[in-house]
Amino acid sequence: MPNQTVAVLGLGAMGSAITERLRDTGYATVVWNRTAARTAPHAAAGSRAAATAAEAVAAADTVLVVLFDDASVREHLDPLAADLKGRTVVNLTTTTPDQARATAAWAAEHGLTYLDGAIMATPDMIGTPVSRLLYSGDRAAYDGARAVLEVLGAADYEGEDAGLASLKDMALLTAMYQMFAGFMQAAAMMRTVGVPAADTAAEIRGWLGALLPHLDHFGAEIDRGDFDPARGQDVEFTRAAIGSLITAARGQGVSAVLLEPLMRQLDELSATGRGGADWISVIDQLPVK
Amino acid sequence: MPNQTVAVLGLGAMGSAITERLRDTGYATVVWNRTAARTAPHAAAGSRAAATAAEAVAAADTVLVVLFDDASVREHLDPLAADLKGRTVVNLTTTTPDQARATAAWAAEHGLTYLDGAIMATPDMIGTPVSRLLYSGDRAAYDGARAVLEVLGAADYEGEDAGLASLKDMALLTAMYQMFAGFMQAAAMMRTVGVPAADTAAEIRGWLGALLPHLDHFGAEIDRGDFDPARGQDVEFTRAAIGSLITAARGQGVSAVLLEPLMRQLDELSATGRGGADWISVIDQLPVK
Repeated sequence: MPNQTVAVLGLGAMGSAITERLRDTGYATVVWNRTAARTAPHAAAGSRAAATAAEAVAAADTVLVVLFDDASVREHLDPLAADLKGRTVVNLTTTTPDQARATAAWAAEHGLTYLDGAIMATPDMIGTPVSRLLYSGDRAAYDGARAVLEVLGAADYEGEDAGLASLKDMALLTAMYQMFAGFMQAAAMMRTVGVPAADTAAEIRGWLGALLPHLDHFGAEIDRGDFDPARGQDVEFTRAAIGSLITAARGQGVSAVLLEPLMRQLDELSATGRGGADWISVIDQLPVK
Repeated sequence: MPNQTVAVLGLGAMGSAITERLRDTGYATVVWNRTAARTAPHAAAGSRAAATAAEAVAAADTVLVVLFDDASVREHLDPLAADLKGRTVVNLTTTTPDQARATAAWAAEHGLTYLDGAIMATPDMIGTPVSRLLYSGDRAAYDGARAVLEVLGAADYEGEDAGLASLKDMALLTAMYQMFAGFMQAAAMMRTVGVPAADTAAEIRGWLGALLPHLDHFGAEIDRGDFDPARGQDVEFTRAAIGSLITAARGQGVSAVLLEPLMRQLDELSATGRGGADWISVIDQLPVK
């Protein structure tokens, strides 16, 4: 039976799911939320409701911060620097890597034990086998809090740079939104001839699922850095292909704006004499020079 | 044993794979290619090499057109209108839906039996269980050629509009390129902290694979058209999320151009009072008004 007390600051959908999971696994929990009414169901279920964030922190060994955004973190944690001393602060709020690094620097300045986290799960997944959380920053803080963290889902430590968990979170979310945007473009095209989006979804699930293993080839090629088109498809061929996709979308009365930035990258590779390289070399266009 | 003769016009990687497959399954094949040298290995393997496209067509019941692009189709088929009479022409060249429709109209004008096709496979997949080809246009042409077509891979008839096979092809390719672009953006972000692209590929394979079933929810929601955020995530939340992804990329020195068009669509929904709708309503922005 865990004998630690965990404070949860923020009772949105995610903070509530985390509190519930901790409670269900035997942790003493103390909760605080800006709008106090949200603590009531947790108090009724056995958590202690704190009137202030300072009160919640004072009662806890580990403090999980699950606020709306980085601005809320700044607003609510900054006044608590003294109160947080001697406790482990784990910030699970979604922030950018630089924001995570700034909070870690603030914590270091105040002598606090601080770990940054990113939740690769929806609230209903917390505590299930498909839940995964990423952590980065102070390794000792991670090791100390690990028992608590593993109750929430698989816990991966990404490294000492406090921004790493957030960076991987953002990289994965970027891939997710681009995939969803591609589905929307495809569904918009097919709707012009009366095909329901549900049918396009079923097609694309199978199609993209079959293509996912191809990412391994891309990854290996990027790491080699040779961009040999013999292994793939060159920039000029891909320009012609994407050009057809743009023409096809417009021909059906669908905007091609989602495809245009990729086309511009290919155009630039072509214009600078790199039309014969594998098109995956687009990745070398992305770092800002 | 099939007693039909099939002409293959165009011996690029795909035309060659198709010819080989037809030969292996017992079809008499006659091949033509603009550069005659490419016919030699096929002649050595038992195909008949024709000196001109007209000669190839004259010997065949079914004519498979596998040329470089629509311009090549125009260039080589237009002079053959008389020769193609009485044969079934199946155009497997990658074209846009409107180009497919134009070729079908040209064929109708000359009283030809014409079917448009799109190949959802790479050359090495032809004839294997994972090969799939889409067809649209003249249903009778499809039914007549079906035995030949099924030798190449699963054959799906999409409908009477000759542009449908190409449209679905382009829709699926659009989703593919957007997914690959998302991977490139993610890999570019992770490389800034020294993570190899191969590691990012492995992460993203698992992550996107787990997310693919979500497309079914999107499809159903788009078809309902209610865009109820209670089932998903609203525009304002998604704007904040994509805004963070853009900030995070730039913070790491990576261009965010690939994400910007999606952000602009969300901004427009927000600016026109639709910030509270599910963000998948972006799809309604795509048809050109």
